[in-house]
Amino acid sequence: MNLGKVVGTVVATRKDPCMDGLKFMLVRHIDPEGKETGGHVVAVDAVGAGPGELVLIATGSSARQTIATQNRPCDAVIMAIVDSWEIGGVDKYRK
Amino acid sequence: MNLGKVVGTVVATRKDPCMDGLKFMLVRHIDPEGKETGGHVVAVDAVGAGPGELVLIATGSSARQTIATQNRPCDAVIMAIVDSWEIGGVDKYRK
Amino acid sequence: MNLGKVVGTVVATRKDPCMDGLKFMLVRHIDPEGKETGGHVVAVDAVGAGPGELVLIATGSSARQTIATQNRPCDAVIMAIVDSWEIGGVDKYRK
Amino acid sequence: MNLGKVVGTVVATRKDPCMDGLKFMLVRHIDPEGKETGGHVVAVDAVGAGPGELVLIATGSSARQTIATQNRPCDAVIMAIVDSWEIGGVDKYRK
Amino acid sequence: MNLGKVVGTVVATRKDPCMDGLKFMLVRHIDPEGKETGGHVVAVDAVGAGPGELVLIATGSSARQTIATQNRPCDAVIMAIVDSWEIGGVDKYRK
Repeated sequence: MNLGKVVGTVVATRKDPCMDGLKFMLVRHIDPEGKETGGHVVAVDAVGAGPGELVLIATGSSARQTIATQNRPCDAVIMAIVDSWEIGGVDKYRK
Repeated sequence: MNLGKVVGTVVATRKDPCMDGLKFMLVRHIDPEGKETGGHVVAVDAVGAGPGELVLIATGSSARQTIATQNRPCDAVIMAIVDSWEIGGVDKYRK
Repeated sequence: MNLGKVVGTVVATRKDPCMDGLKFMLVRHIDPEGKETGGHVVAVDAVGAGPGELVLIATGSSARQTIATQNRPCDAVIMAIVDSWEIGGVDKYRK
Repeated sequence: MNLGKVVGTVVATRKDPCMDGLKFMLVRHIDPEGKETGGHVVAVDAVGAGPGELVLIATGSSARQTIATQNRPCDAVIMAIVDSWEIGGVDKYRK
Repeated sequence: MNLGKVVGTVVATRKDPCMDGLKFMLVRHIDPEGKETGGHVVAVDAVGAGPGELVLIATGSSARQTIATQNRPCDAVIMAIVDSWEIGGVDKYRK
């Protein structure tokens, strides 16, 4: 999974019918220090994430293993909201 | 999913029979500011996208989850046409 | 899919039995201007492509959706030979 | 698979129910010389790896082939703890 | 598939039970000129490749399509040993 920060939303009314009812979030990748890497992805939200929250993104076929995304043309999903992480016992992020 | 801009079309008459009837679009990747990143992909169109439109691209096995692309050797599909996106409440793009 | 140019062939007699009878082509990636990007891939040929031809490559599990490659340990397939492409109505390549 | 070093843990209480009970580890990629490459991934631990250990990471759909991760939205798994590796008969790492 | 050169072996006794009996090889990526690119991967050996041999690597779900790797958390497999390749009719490598 990748660490990311939710920064915005994408609206698309004309889409594959399978995608109806799903919410597209714009997520910037972050590194273990919490800094943005410059990368980004548009991910379906499966956990009710809001702007500014740090999240975990699963990609590829694994992005279709949530109830929300099963059998849909979705290749990236927010499947967790991050509370905290530590490196070597030192907190790098705490919500 | 990736943000992209449809810039052209690719014609291929000699192809795997499974791909008959599908339309190949040339799509340039764009970043959250709407700028081209330099990357590109050839994607099957599942939503009737036209030149100049901003779209969402799903890749990998997820690209085979639309009715148009099921069980076909297709690894990238346009599965939505973007109306708008915002970052931090500020519109970055509106059609 | 990726645009590529067939530049050579790879011979491998000792291989997984599932790969018997398949032809490995050496393909260089090209960009929408027709220039080589520096990247390359070894792909199974599913359409009878020859040296110098421009082709479309599908990768990942989608590379196993042709009759030639089904259930085989193949992660890249030539599934179309490109006749032409255009950007903004201007031909960038015509065979 | 990729070589990695476990450097920390990620806590996420709000997540897809399928991910309950799984442990997220922060893993930095390392190269064959044992140096960190700058890349990282958040992986589910399927083998009881601890901080500082060198591990193998499987990604994509293969990350769902352990008992712990089956049918879950998980795209990276620690599936082995590395004891040693050698290049040209010379030990590069020994636990 | 990717061209690679087998340079070493990785030993891991503590691993997912599904991986028992499989051999992990350290493989450096090479380009069509036969030069190392700087990239590498740890791949399961399905064809009895030895150190110094040039091989083809399949990745992703395709890495699970050999008898040795079926249903295992393996995302890279050596599925062929390269005898030779040519570019434009000129041999670039011959074993």
